[in-house]
Amino acid sequence: MSEADNRIQDWVENIFRGDVRAISRAITAVENRDSDSHALLKLLFPRTGKAALIGITGPAGAGKSTLVDGLAALMRNQGHSVGILAIDPSSPFSGGAILGDRIRMQAHAAASDIFIRSMATRGALGGISSATLDAAMVLDAAGKDFILIETVGVGQDEVEIIRLADITLVLSIPGTGDDVQAFKAGIMEIADIFVLNKSDLPGADRVEQEIRSLLSLAPESQAWRPEIIRTVATRQEGLENLWQAITRYLAFSRERGIFDDRRREHWQARIMSLLQSRLLDQLLRNALPDGALSEYAAQVASRQSDPYEITDLILKQSGHLNP
Amino acid sequence: MSEADNRIQDWVENIFRGDVRAISRAITAVENRDSDSHALLKLLFPRTGKAALIGITGPAGAGKSTLVDGLAALMRNQGHSVGILAIDPSSPFSGGAILGDRIRMQAHAAASDIFIRSMATRGALGGISSATLDAAMVLDAAGKDFILIETVGVGQDEVEIIRLADITLVLSIPGTGDDVQAFKAGIMEIADIFVLNKSDLPGADRVEQEIRSLLSLAPESQAWRPEIIRTVATRQEGLENLWQAITRYLAFSRERGIFDDRRREHWQARIMSLLQSRLLDQLLRNALPDGALSEYAAQVASRQSDPYEITDLILKQSGHLNP
Repeated sequence: MSEADNRIQDWVENIFRGDVRAISRAITAVENRDSDSHALLKLLFPRTGKAALIGITGPAGAGKSTLVDGLAALMRNQGHSVGILAIDPSSPFSGGAILGDRIRMQAHAAASDIFIRSMATRGALGGISSATLDAAMVLDAAGKDFILIETVGVGQDEVEIIRLADITLVLSIPGTGDDVQAFKAGIMEIADIFVLNKSDLPGADRVEQEIRSLLSLAPESQAWRPEIIRTVATRQEGLENLWQAITRYLAFSRERGIFDDRRREHWQARIMSLLQSRLLDQLLRNALPDGALSEYAAQVASRQSDPYEITDLILKQSGHLNP
Repeated sequence: MSEADNRIQDWVENIFRGDVRAISRAITAVENRDSDSHALLKLLFPRTGKAALIGITGPAGAGKSTLVDGLAALMRNQGHSVGILAIDPSSPFSGGAILGDRIRMQAHAAASDIFIRSMATRGALGGISSATLDAAMVLDAAGKDFILIETVGVGQDEVEIIRLADITLVLSIPGTGDDVQAFKAGIMEIADIFVLNKSDLPGADRVEQEIRSLLSLAPESQAWRPEIIRTVATRQEGLENLWQAITRYLAFSRERGIFDDRRREHWQARIMSLLQSRLLDQLLRNALPDGALSEYAAQVASRQSDPYEITDLILKQSGHLNP
């Protein structure tokens, strides 16, 4: 065994033991797609599959972090180990994500088994969904029972992450009808549980009514009717109810085979995405000399050629264009 | 020329003439990746490149639609033709997008040359950014001078669209510091102009100050210092200023070569994405029998194999694994 192999083997053992530094370094490695990350994930993989992935989404200002932190603390008090991945729309030049983590970490100082990590939405090579799901795999291998993945917004990449979770919570808050409507509409079908946070604010009944009427439009065939749970996360109200709804859904979904179906769908999507990036990497490395791509792009920008012709040309030259 | 070719040729001519029905059908075709869409885009392409793409993003409730509609009306009054693409987080079962379009269309009833179309965030084969940019190409070929692309949220796919626009406006509103902060941080670097909408509300000065202090963190080397423009879109206030700032930026960016650089970057990204989907399509069609992928996914889900091994296997079997 080479020295590099030994080093990775040690690293993997430390992750299995739940060592926080080893976990952190592994997440950084998968985020940056370091040369080690592939070997690492391959070694971690056989020990994964036990953690349940909980996706939590909702608009900015809905109190996601507070809710997630409260839920994580409750789970821990019930004897479960928990990891949190927060997908953070932070900027390289504000450094917000790292600062935020420190503050949240301190709140959980007593709970060394709650691991919190922000994933930057930008700069992740190969896409945020891939990096986040790899990070979840690291936490899974480290023995976490539950991994909470927290996202803002309704971008396709985030919908992807949420769709690949085992259960999805969608947060709403009382507020202007427009916001809630716009947000809910996009994310509606993927919600297994609706969380109505800040439910002590005026307008909570109206929002609940809106969710119910949207739900009534869903096809009857839907196996699970999403529950609506009211919370006031800042006062830890409703978290116990939410936790019970989560365990109810997970039991239902395992029993009906939905859980396994989702997991197969998850892996099918990930195999396709691995194939896609491997194919492109290989093509760029083997068939395109340095600078060729930007030369082609300039030709298209000046309308000397069209992007479809260029694509055909590249595929033909590389022997990838089958009839 | 075959009958199909004739039909597509007629369609293309109608698009060049700016026929609304032909444009609508073309956008639907690219959204669904109809079999015709490739041939159509190829024929449209030589007439594209003249329209300026304006990306507008901001949180739900910031008044994007009102601002975009007002800006479009102002541009039209100055003799420009305008298209609007609104990326709408709508659900297949709420049907919100279509309804919304009708309402907005009516507001522009007098202005038959403003074309408005919502693009659903989900269900677009091959991703929303690809479908939206193809739709923009249709409008470009139809002779629109400006295409306004309006998006919610901070997902990676939306950032992609905005990044590929010729100019990007980021909307903020006075409100809770957290919201604005979280939103701005993610989108900060891609803003060419900050629009402070609803600037008659209390707290506008504070938000402007926040934006200024975030901007002061930006590297000095940045060629363009983003302007901050205050608007009250519901009363058409500040739109004239905003329009002037847009033309100022476009003149600056053309003069400095930023405009052309962005366009080349745009086409490079799109060629890569075309290559990626062509490669995967080909692999799935030629090298994987029906059901093979879901069988592989099941093996991974049950940990009989790992996703990297499966990917290698598929690439090897299909002759795509070069050493």
